Amino acid sequence: MAHNVTEKLIHSHLVNGTAQPGHEIGLRIDQTLTQDATGTMVMLELESLGLDRIQTELSVQYVDHNLLQTDAKNPEDHQFLQSAAQRYGLWFSKPGNGVSHPVHQARFGRPGVTMIGSDSHTCAAGAIGMLAIGAGGLEIAMAMAGDPLYVQMPEVWGVELTGQLPDWVSAKDVILEMLRRHGVKGGTGRVVEYYGDGLKHLTAMDRHVIANMGAELGATTSVFPADDVTREFFEAVGRPEDFTELIADEGATYDVQEHINLSELEPLIAYPSSPGNVVPVREVAGEDVFQVVVGSSANPGLRDFAIVAEILRGRQAHDQVSLDINPTSREILMDLTKGGWTFELLSSGARLHQSGCMGCIGMGQAPAIGRNSLRTMPRNFPGRSGTDEDAVWLCSPETAAAAALTGKITDPRELDMEYPSFQLPKQYSVNNDMLLPPLDEEEARKVELVKGHNIESLPEFDDLPDELELPVLLKVGDNVSTDEIMPAGSRVLPYRSNIPKMAEFVYIQVDDTYSKRAADNSGEHAIVGGDNYGQGSSREHAVIAPRYLGLRVVVAQSFARIHWQNLANFGVLALEFENPEDYDRLSQNDVLRFTGLHEALKQGSTITADLNGEELTLRHRLSERQVDMVLAGGRIPHRAAEKASSEETPEEEIRPMQPEG
Amino acid sequence: MAHNVTEKLIHSHLVNGTAQPGHEIGLRIDQTLTQDATGTMVMLELESLGLDRIQTELSVQYVDHNLLQTDAKNPEDHQFLQSAAQRYGLWFSKPGNGVSHPVHQARFGRPGVTMIGSDSHTCAAGAIGMLAIGAGGLEIAMAMAGDPLYVQMPEVWGVELTGQLPDWVSAKDVILEMLRRHGVKGGTGRVVEYYGDGLKHLTAMDRHVIANMGAELGATTSVFPADDVTREFFEAVGRPEDFTELIADEGATYDVQEHINLSELEPLIAYPSSPGNVVPVREVAGEDVFQVVVGSSANPGLRDFAIVAEILRGRQAHDQVSLDINPTSREILMDLTKGGWTFELLSSGARLHQSGCMGCIGMGQAPAIGRNSLRTMPRNFPGRSGTDEDAVWLCSPETAAAAALTGKITDPRELDMEYPSFQLPKQYSVNNDMLLPPLDEEEARKVELVKGHNIESLPEFDDLPDELELPVLLKVGDNVSTDEIMPAGSRVLPYRSNIPKMAEFVYIQVDDTYSKRAADNSGEHAIVGGDNYGQGSSREHAVIAPRYLGLRVVVAQSFARIHWQNLANFGVLALEFENPEDYDRLSQNDVLRFTGLHEALKQGSTITADLNGEELTLRHRLSERQVDMVLAGGRIPHRAAEKASSEETPEEEIRPMQPEG
Repeated sequence: MAHNVTEKLIHSHLVNGTAQPGHEIGLRIDQTLTQDATGTMVMLELESLGLDRIQTELSVQYVDHNLLQTDAKNPEDHQFLQSAAQRYGLWFSKPGNGVSHPVHQARFGRPGVTMIGSDSHTCAAGAIGMLAIGAGGLEIAMAMAGDPLYVQMPEVWGVELTGQLPDWVSAKDVILEMLRRHGVKGGTGRVVEYYGDGLKHLTAMDRHVIANMGAELGATTSVFPADDVTREFFEAVGRPEDFTELIADEGATYDVQEHINLSELEPLIAYPSSPGNVVPVREVAGEDVFQVVVGSSANPGLRDFAIVAEILRGRQAHDQVSLDINPTSREILMDLTKGGWTFELLSSGARLHQSGCMGCIGMGQAPAIGRNSLRTMPRNFPGRSGTDEDAVWLCSPETAAAAALTGKITDPRELDMEYPSFQLPKQYSVNNDMLLPPLDEEEARKVELVKGHNIESLPEFDDLPDELELPVLLKVGDNVSTDEIMPAGSRVLPYRSNIPKMAEFVYIQVDDTYSKRAADNSGEHAIVGGDNYGQGSSREHAVIAPRYLGLRVVVAQSFARIHWQNLANFGVLALEFENPEDYDRLSQNDVLRFTGLHEALKQGSTITADLNGEELTLRHRLSERQVDMVLAGGRIPHRAAEKASSEETPEEEIRPMQPEG
Repeated sequence: MAHNVTEKLIHSHLVNGTAQPGHEIGLRIDQTLTQDATGTMVMLELESLGLDRIQTELSVQYVDHNLLQTDAKNPEDHQFLQSAAQRYGLWFSKPGNGVSHPVHQARFGRPGVTMIGSDSHTCAAGAIGMLAIGAGGLEIAMAMAGDPLYVQMPEVWGVELTGQLPDWVSAKDVILEMLRRHGVKGGTGRVVEYYGDGLKHLTAMDRHVIANMGAELGATTSVFPADDVTREFFEAVGRPEDFTELIADEGATYDVQEHINLSELEPLIAYPSSPGNVVPVREVAGEDVFQVVVGSSANPGLRDFAIVAEILRGRQAHDQVSLDINPTSREILMDLTKGGWTFELLSSGARLHQSGCMGCIGMGQAPAIGRNSLRTMPRNFPGRSGTDEDAVWLCSPETAAAAALTGKITDPRELDMEYPSFQLPKQYSVNNDMLLPPLDEEEARKVELVKGHNIESLPEFDDLPDELELPVLLKVGDNVSTDEIMPAGSRVLPYRSNIPKMAEFVYIQVDDTYSKRAADNSGEHAIVGGDNYGQGSSREHAVIAPRYLGLRVVVAQSFARIHWQNLANFGVLALEFENPEDYDRLSQNDVLRFTGLHEALKQGSTITADLNGEELTLRHRLSERQVDMVLAGGRIPHRAAEKASSEETPEEEIRPMQPEG
């Protein structure tokens, strides 16, 4: 039977379940990626699991988020992460080495390999034929401990690309076109697999742009074949030996079909405050622009910066515009410098920042209130920039450069110039010296974890009671992102390893009384959400912190994948309305009553709650494995219970965390 | 009569008083410099003065401090400053253009010219034969309004330099030697004038290093002659026409004499937490280092970065070290890039940050608690880095580079290598496009100030009562800096135009109950200080915010110059102990009673207070002009009163703010 690339990747790593859409499957995980904002928690989880050494083929701890160091918390976290990487056998990427996704693609990624990462843009590695999935931190910790990843088997969404991008249109416009067509939950439950003739004009870094923002579509991941274009990339980064071809079989089919003629695309832009708000640039041209930011994993390639330099060459950014450039990695900045583009960007008025995520995660570069900021980044959720009432737009480097020049949103085709053509180097700069390799096992065991003053152990959570009486402390609408549930930015991110402190900031932009009301309520409560609840970043803090405040149940019309997994991992019950209109029956301060929960969860997917004396029918999508986890209060107590029980019956083989069925 | 350079500068600008040490003199001010952290307040002062257009020959508003933009406050301040510069006729240096002092030297400075700036390191411009003095913001506003600057005529301290710096020893070690010999108040009441044969080997940017940190000596300013070396600098920056020679007359003398043989100097370092704690590097070699930061106005020159690149060339920063590079200006970063040094620095593991002050003012780059951070910066006051309990050391670029390589404090002469030799360009890169010129008067009048959400008007302060009963709310020791009185850093700096908010942070590191106790006391109080009270930064917020909390009198053993002026400008009475040992008689919560203050202030310098029924003899150093100001509640109400009185008697010439005597 002919297989597509996604099926090949899944079949070669399947250790549990049947690869049919909707079923839970277990996948062997070869590599993991953690970044600092989520990684401190992952390392604390490894510690609490008592892990001696990681079981993955390769795991890398990056530092790319918390780079500002406005006080001692961030540098102390960096030291903690460096010591933990040494202790457990991970690679460590020092601050300044760059954003995890492009660095991983250049230095560690390989076709045919699976990876999970505690960052929702982990999917970017699909650019080189990997099956790479963003997940909550605990999933990554468990994978490092040797467990498979459990996911719902996705549908495979084949997107055929034909034609060739016109001048002034680039890879970012391809993924913006997908978002224009399908919105921020169009990819839910799907892997997007790109194929077709149009691929041959898209470099591996172009593909990274498209795969990366699959996260914004809500897709499980995105996958490209590993073809001759991919081979060129491996040669350029000095690792030809790591390339293996991985392409779909002749006649392979897809669960869902889509076609994009690249030749017909035009410059697109997402207006505030969702990546799904995509329109042609020409429709919004003329709006004043005060900031332009180029960088992030959504436009990380050398060409994405070089094209900006070439468009600006010999001219100056507009007087009212702050032009901020965030090189994605040290190696890319070295090549930008070698190619003369760093000099050109500086000459044109760029503020050149350190390599890393920077403004993409609200670490600096916040715009003025209501003043338009155009960014080549993946997300513009409200307040993510660090500014409440921000006005962030997402676009290609070409569109960003045009706005930098004119001080207005400008269709770059309207610039009075030829589309620049320039040569990228055949060989990229290679410099691994900021990547510290794992210690050998003996040395590793001698390493003490360097815990800074801000690192608090994970709180312990109890099991799920059979009866619950939960006031609804908050009701929110559709597409609420984890940036809204648990803000990032320079004010909050430094507390990423301190849950009690983080909890003070939960939902602060949406309702700054929630955290206090939950604490005052000194007990358990529910939250009601709309469609696609918990989209965006993979941060498990968006579950752990509200759980710490007493959150027991979230009732929503639907959930985003990673957040839904995180809820289960930390024992919060995620329930959907049987009838979506029932959303309207619930108001803040209503009380939901559940009885006989344990049996109900085990027996099927339907859960009935009492709401003001009337029935409310809900359902869950948990697997048997997940039901047991939620009943136990989450994955960590569940694992501990399993371990204890297997120690009581020592004749059985100890298989902690293996699924029951 | 033969004159030294300082005398020539003073005599050519004297508009009031006699140029004899200790007397108040009035100087005509040609240029002003404001930066963003102090500048927002200056622009608000211009607004409250009702100024139409600045009266100086040239004034420049820089943005170099508040660059992190962790929320909307900083970018909104930048827009406010840009609009105010346009409104009042200033140049505006955009964020990213660089640190005020080196940019000013390259683009605007001229020998023979006077300048004041709302930044204590304004004195750096003495490097090119300017008389450049740091002062509180209100002084700058008044100078822009056309008023002279009033200062106590300083002594001139002639420092003869002979010989030539050995390999591995550079300009920073010269000023560290001055600090080693004389400490942080050795320059009080003096202008340091460098002369002698040794000058010919010190470039204009080397001289900038030395002049800049004259602020740390407590000097009024530092002055170098404008000689052939200076001429070379003006040629290199493309402004040969702006050079005029300014050298001491044959036979010129100095009030105080000093000699440094450059050939005998060795690498020096200031240990935590004062620039006065200077020892030879070899005495502290071997201590672990976790961070190295290169940049700031204390080592701003191209060579200061190039030497680091050359020392690191082909090697990598130590695994445990974060190597942070802050280019001082866009032009310098352009030349670093042109010369290949940017590439080398990146290759060696540098985190390359945007051009600006950055970690020097605690805007990011905070070190871990207690972990040694070596910096080429001018100050290491406790907590200035952003980290309480920090361990910041000050050193030359050579010593910094050695530590980056070894991960330990290392005498750079012990590195197993030749001292690098390299060629600096004859012509520096010139790019003025981030310097926005003043609008013409007609256009300027059309400009509306763009006031962000964080900008609060200056509070109004009442006049000084004749009787005061003041509890001592705080007693501090020697050398308290304005960084301790009114912290900067990323948490506090964004509130620089919001006094009520700033007031919550006054003295927070020294005694975090002070601000609350002052507010609770809901009234007036005194603070007791030791020697050299208020050293360091020129920030007038260190007076305005405690004044807002009710501070009326500071009694200290002695005061640092700028802070002393700021106290008078905002109506706080600065008193010294007649008998320094009386410091020991005062404790927190003691009550000081003053009666007949008005007469006492007018009649002489002695003020007698009642302390627990006993007499305490104090004195003030205020000029007649300043006494009137303090009695009126500060310079702004004093000016308003003068204006009102001159309007009542219209036959008199209106000369607001001219001194009485």
